[in-house]
Amino acid sequence: MTQTNGDLFEAVSSQAQTAKAAARVLSTLSTAQKNEVLLAMGDALLSSANQILLANELDVQDAISNGQSDSRIDRLRLSHKRIEEMVSGLKQVVHLPDPVGERLSTRKRQNGLVIDQIRVPLGVVAMIYESRPNVTVDAAGLTLKTGNAVVLRGGKEALRTNSILVESLRKGLTQQGLPEGAIGFIDRPERETVDMLIRMRGLIDLAIPRGGAGLISTVVERALVPVIETGVGNCHVYVDRDADFQKATSIVINAKTQRPSVCNAIETLLVHESIASAFLPLIAADLIAKSVEIRGCEKTLAILQTLFNLHRDHIVPAQDEDFETEFSDLVLAIKVVHDEKEAIDHIDRYGTRHSEAIVSENMVAAEEFLQQVDAAAVYHNASTRFTDGFEFGFGAEIGISTQKLHARGPMGLEALTSYKYVIRGDGQIRG
Amino acid sequence: MTQTNGDLFEAVSSQAQTAKAAARVLSTLSTAQKNEVLLAMGDALLSSANQILLANELDVQDAISNGQSDSRIDRLRLSHKRIEEMVSGLKQVVHLPDPVGERLSTRKRQNGLVIDQIRVPLGVVAMIYESRPNVTVDAAGLTLKTGNAVVLRGGKEALRTNSILVESLRKGLTQQGLPEGAIGFIDRPERETVDMLIRMRGLIDLAIPRGGAGLISTVVERALVPVIETGVGNCHVYVDRDADFQKATSIVINAKTQRPSVCNAIETLLVHESIASAFLPLIAADLIAKSVEIRGCEKTLAILQTLFNLHRDHIVPAQDEDFETEFSDLVLAIKVVHDEKEAIDHIDRYGTRHSEAIVSENMVAAEEFLQQVDAAAVYHNASTRFTDGFEFGFGAEIGISTQKLHARGPMGLEALTSYKYVIRGDGQIRG
Repeated sequence: MTQTNGDLFEAVSSQAQTAKAAARVLSTLSTAQKNEVLLAMGDALLSSANQILLANELDVQDAISNGQSDSRIDRLRLSHKRIEEMVSGLKQVVHLPDPVGERLSTRKRQNGLVIDQIRVPLGVVAMIYESRPNVTVDAAGLTLKTGNAVVLRGGKEALRTNSILVESLRKGLTQQGLPEGAIGFIDRPERETVDMLIRMRGLIDLAIPRGGAGLISTVVERALVPVIETGVGNCHVYVDRDADFQKATSIVINAKTQRPSVCNAIETLLVHESIASAFLPLIAADLIAKSVEIRGCEKTLAILQTLFNLHRDHIVPAQDEDFETEFSDLVLAIKVVHDEKEAIDHIDRYGTRHSEAIVSENMVAAEEFLQQVDAAAVYHNASTRFTDGFEFGFGAEIGISTQKLHARGPMGLEALTSYKYVIRGDGQIRG
Repeated sequence: MTQTNGDLFEAVSSQAQTAKAAARVLSTLSTAQKNEVLLAMGDALLSSANQILLANELDVQDAISNGQSDSRIDRLRLSHKRIEEMVSGLKQVVHLPDPVGERLSTRKRQNGLVIDQIRVPLGVVAMIYESRPNVTVDAAGLTLKTGNAVVLRGGKEALRTNSILVESLRKGLTQQGLPEGAIGFIDRPERETVDMLIRMRGLIDLAIPRGGAGLISTVVERALVPVIETGVGNCHVYVDRDADFQKATSIVINAKTQRPSVCNAIETLLVHESIASAFLPLIAADLIAKSVEIRGCEKTLAILQTLFNLHRDHIVPAQDEDFETEFSDLVLAIKVVHDEKEAIDHIDRYGTRHSEAIVSENMVAAEEFLQQVDAAAVYHNASTRFTDGFEFGFGAEIGISTQKLHARGPMGLEALTSYKYVIRGDGQIRG
């Protein structure tokens, strides 16, 4: 290991080690104590608002000089209002029920043993994320409420902002007599720190990557600690033969255009062939009015191209790769399918198991779709945009899991917990 | 990729792909259909008993020629009785409740959406295991009952036995009209097949390694698919100042000697210093009578060595590494601790978070231990040997998880499931 690497490794491992030590303390706190800390953190953020904005301005200036895109700069930029939103986020977490200590099951065995299954914190959670500085505050709040320590590794473009945010949050901890190591923070910009962090078996209990597909697959591929994959969404709406066209158009337009950059927006529309010539012109008119580019299969083009000759720039042939792509933009692939089975097979082949919807008035078709489609969230006659911790009523969201282990779909506080078996006896031994 | 590797990769990926296709079929089976298949599998095993024993005899002869240890050969060897036990294991699985389809929660939202959280199969489970051929049958039965496909990769020393077992199990599948690909099997001995299997993202939903520490850490380090770590157990009993000595001796002897090779046996005894000079001679006499070698800390030796001068071979100084070792044998490290906190700190440092016990009549001390010790199972006045799916009343066990994600401790059928959110609406869109 080179000098620099040894130094870097030391920086990362010291944060993980102090977080682990702090996790033992956090796991024994009462709900009231944790809520006090959350409020103190919020106060500390408000008191440091001017310093936070100053540090943020430096990060934003650098991002502009480095030619970052407007959307990245927007995600990076804070304001008084955004700081207040972070603080109000912490206050919302105060009001959520504390899952830690919940008894999940009890078994009394014939030999007299009583086996309780009790919800406990995970221990130390590593968050690896990109430019949004609000993740720093959200993650600190949610992990604290669940009695976990956290190690934060944000994007290097937000390093100054995150540093001062963490400094403020730690003031909230120490004011309440807690170790500041409960919020670990990697204050170095080097990319290797991510690799180091996600390989610290025995120190890190869970790594959660939040960001683009590149970040997520890097973490999944290189991690030695358990990871929850989040966020990649190639989602579909299937408009069935027996669809109500009004519901179908409103759901497709909402799912595609209300916020096209997010993971629960749709990328492909599947249409049953027996209604294609009636439905496609309706939806195409609405899509074009919303400036959506249509990438259609042959049958789609055959129906639309003559009708929409004036808008031919907006209607182009779909390539196979279009069906694999999360456009995250005002682009929609459209495919006419022979029947529901072909729609389900298409989703099985191209989908990322995030959110999938059927629009149909036929209950048999709907139930088949809901049962057979393998995804975190399957919808009948509703927009895929509802896949969200707040919309599901969890009161918080640490991310949206697209894997099947531990947590699937929107992750609330419970996703940050594990359990242990507590067994009480009176001298029992195994025969 | 070399010719051989390409060929090997094809062999592994074809099993994973056919398993994935089969998983879609399995996920829609009723409980009754799955139970029929389990019974048909049992019948097929009994009909093939002679062929199974012949194949097993060839594996056993090879293992003997290769100089394998007696304990490995014993694990490998089948008999009519062992085949009957496998079949009765399948019948037990028939009687277990089917977790798939269970509604875990329901939320009605103000906008009229109804969100059901429904338990579903994981999809495709890869089992990577060593010599015991009964794992082949157990894993096939448990994954089938939970609607999952499985890909089995057993030890090369059991290849002939496992091949014929899988052939019989598949007869049970096809007799019931199911695809034999539901039980995938890697019929090649090369070690690289493990690496290939645990890197098939998108095909394998979960890998479970069962075997020695080497196998488990190889799988954890190299896998790209989610893994559940199983089985490594460095477990402790702490005998508190207020312990009942009779309970303490019986629990320590049981936890150490009833079956020393298993993961829930203890490796270290921690004794409160204020009772050490009274308790250690009692427990030492019992341990020595059971041929257990004691590796004691300085204080332990000071108390025991003069008293047990005749047995000085059985009482040796403990090295620091002894406290890190899963002896899996009749060896016990003993350490005198200043107080309960030192006991908990010792467990935190050296334990593998498997099973930990306190013996005490003091309820305050007991509750502190149960709350503060971070392990899958924490015991008050009972032997650690109870950490087991059958002893916990799960009716089955696919392994014992020592990680905190997804499943912790003994894993029954539920550990082989995930869930999905099923959302029913009437045209709702997000505002």
